[in-house]
Amino acid sequence: MGSVQSGTPDRFADDPAFAVHEDGKLVVRATRPIESIDDLALTYTPGVARVSSAIAAEPALARRYTWAHRVVAVISDGTAVLGLGDIGPAAALPVMEGKACLFSEFAGLDAVPIVLATTDADAIVEIVTALAPSFGGINLEDISAPRCFDIEARLRDRLDIPVMHDDQHGTAIVLLAAMRNAARVTGRSLEDLRVVVAGAGAAGVACAKILLEAGVGDLAVADSRGVLHTGRQDLTGMKRWVAEHTNQAGFAGSMVGALEGADVYVGLSGGSVPEAAIATMAENCIVFSLANPTPEVDPAMAARYAAVVATGRSDLPNQINNVLAFPGVFRGAIDAGATSITEEMKLAAATAIADVVGDEVRTDYIVPSPLDRRVVTAVAEAVAACARREGVTR
Amino acid sequence: MGSVQSGTPDRFADDPAFAVHEDGKLVVRATRPIESIDDLALTYTPGVARVSSAIAAEPALARRYTWAHRVVAVISDGTAVLGLGDIGPAAALPVMEGKACLFSEFAGLDAVPIVLATTDADAIVEIVTALAPSFGGINLEDISAPRCFDIEARLRDRLDIPVMHDDQHGTAIVLLAAMRNAARVTGRSLEDLRVVVAGAGAAGVACAKILLEAGVGDLAVADSRGVLHTGRQDLTGMKRWVAEHTNQAGFAGSMVGALEGADVYVGLSGGSVPEAAIATMAENCIVFSLANPTPEVDPAMAARYAAVVATGRSDLPNQINNVLAFPGVFRGAIDAGATSITEEMKLAAATAIADVVGDEVRTDYIVPSPLDRRVVTAVAEAVAACARREGVTR
Repeated sequence: MGSVQSGTPDRFADDPAFAVHEDGKLVVRATRPIESIDDLALTYTPGVARVSSAIAAEPALARRYTWAHRVVAVISDGTAVLGLGDIGPAAALPVMEGKACLFSEFAGLDAVPIVLATTDADAIVEIVTALAPSFGGINLEDISAPRCFDIEARLRDRLDIPVMHDDQHGTAIVLLAAMRNAARVTGRSLEDLRVVVAGAGAAGVACAKILLEAGVGDLAVADSRGVLHTGRQDLTGMKRWVAEHTNQAGFAGSMVGALEGADVYVGLSGGSVPEAAIATMAENCIVFSLANPTPEVDPAMAARYAAVVATGRSDLPNQINNVLAFPGVFRGAIDAGATSITEEMKLAAATAIADVVGDEVRTDYIVPSPLDRRVVTAVAEAVAACARREGVTR
Repeated sequence: MGSVQSGTPDRFADDPAFAVHEDGKLVVRATRPIESIDDLALTYTPGVARVSSAIAAEPALARRYTWAHRVVAVISDGTAVLGLGDIGPAAALPVMEGKACLFSEFAGLDAVPIVLATTDADAIVEIVTALAPSFGGINLEDISAPRCFDIEARLRDRLDIPVMHDDQHGTAIVLLAAMRNAARVTGRSLEDLRVVVAGAGAAGVACAKILLEAGVGDLAVADSRGVLHTGRQDLTGMKRWVAEHTNQAGFAGSMVGALEGADVYVGLSGGSVPEAAIATMAENCIVFSLANPTPEVDPAMAARYAAVVATGRSDLPNQINNVLAFPGVFRGAIDAGATSITEEMKLAAATAIADVVGDEVRTDYIVPSPLDRRVVTAVAEAVAACARREGVTR
């Protein structure tokens, strides 16, 4: 009874990615077979009525007798999908399915991909709020900036389950983990670092925030018009906030000026950075160039100046991949019954990722492999412990 | 890393329904393991970007390269859950999970239970419309009348995927199947039957509609105030429609009056019917008394007057259970790529269910067992063939 088209000429036969996606990447199955009238009468009517009645009388029982508490909704409106931009909900779905696969494979969590046929922020907040009793956590994904900041903030306020926009915080957590170990391996402390972040979208803003929280010495963030500073009249919302909390040195103009003598470059913008600019950075500098598939700074060129080079690519060392963060963050939050994902929990996750590397840290090993199964356990335990310490559990 | 509470005193230890519901009844899993960097790069970035790009360029590819086309959303606002009434979304969730289990176990379909924290009809229509790109079909469930009629009609208009409110049409399909065989075994044709339906909610209205479409001779439908007729000033919406299309005999007053000489009683209302009223029905009459767990007409009493007795109970013969319909209806609609579930498809499903019984029909065997695995295949094939014949496929 399969419904996949067959016999059609296949333009994608040479690309194994299409074979992996044939008929989708997820299944939903019952945990117990239904083979007898008794099975039917317990799983469905009349037995289920007794469970529903019990939950109606005592809502906390929903955590024990439904699946909701262990299900993460991976929700996107398709407006900022990978590097592809606003490709809409149907085209975004393979990414959300992929993320759900990672939740399952890495964290043993159940995740449901949901793509929305609306890009209206108010509508998205209303929809996700209405969906919340169905789920134990909300992973917002690939929603464009600046809408993503407002949508996440409003949902965090409204809901008593963990909500996280992964393009912001997953990236930020792994970046901080990488920076901790890059600082360590180059003999610096975070407080010593002067960092330049290229990109003031979802990831750039979140990285700036977590680096400030972690105590990085100074930080300049640039968008396509140059470094954010309080004198710029074109800044609103989160970019204004970033301008007010960064750039102690008062850089204006292009990012290239800020790079001179900087310890760390963080590329989150795409585009390319001239070698002459990298050459002006501090000795033993750190280059994190995360655009995929083409890093902003050519890694081979960067290596002529930098002591540590990291990218988003799986075929190079030091891959900064948010799969190191989100499975363990949600696993830990859900295990602890956390009602939100706090800043402290994100910082704890970053430290846990860095600590998996521990004393084995080298310039080409500042973050664990995405396949290192120790990571999810370490992150989940750190996040759950933090949630309990902060008392943000039910 | 399980998160189920343990060590708490367990008031439900004696009820196996609670054991079956412990930690919920569904899982979501990846169809392919992620064990290597290559797996990761094909399931997620960068490989997934090529699939997303292809779908963005050619939206029809979403049916082939995502799971959406084979996923049914089971959606409720928790306002009319089984016989329990308006118990809210969290308490409704076990029922929706159970339904999703049945989709999986009976039809091999993937189903996602979704309970909504709103009962506003406009909001529900907007939410489900926004969710639609994530799914291949929408099973509305346990939404109270008369809101359910409007919500279903508007979603059917808006969406190009199958939408069905199962409390209406699942029940109606199985009822018609049972009535076909009950007529046959008592030597009647549908055209000869005079039917009384007690209950004018979701199921009652849908049963009236499908019986009219199938050509039942005459039909009277009663709500708590008596038989619906055009002279009643209190009727609006679907009840008004039913009054205008039924009750050729012009019954007014209570249902008991209409039962005199009637061939069939259909109980969809709860409550109880006095023996004296059943005693006035036609010889060899048919009693379908579907309230659960307590039928409106005691089955032992009914058997003193009726040639055929059916109930909703699994411990009695002739169980009228909508699990005979919905798995096959959605399986067939999805297999055919149907853009809606039409009246013809519902009629075809009813005939297919009746035909599984075929020549083995007896007064105590008018519908197949809910566990008869031939049913889903027969219904799916009939529904898919009907969709293709009607040309309502993509």
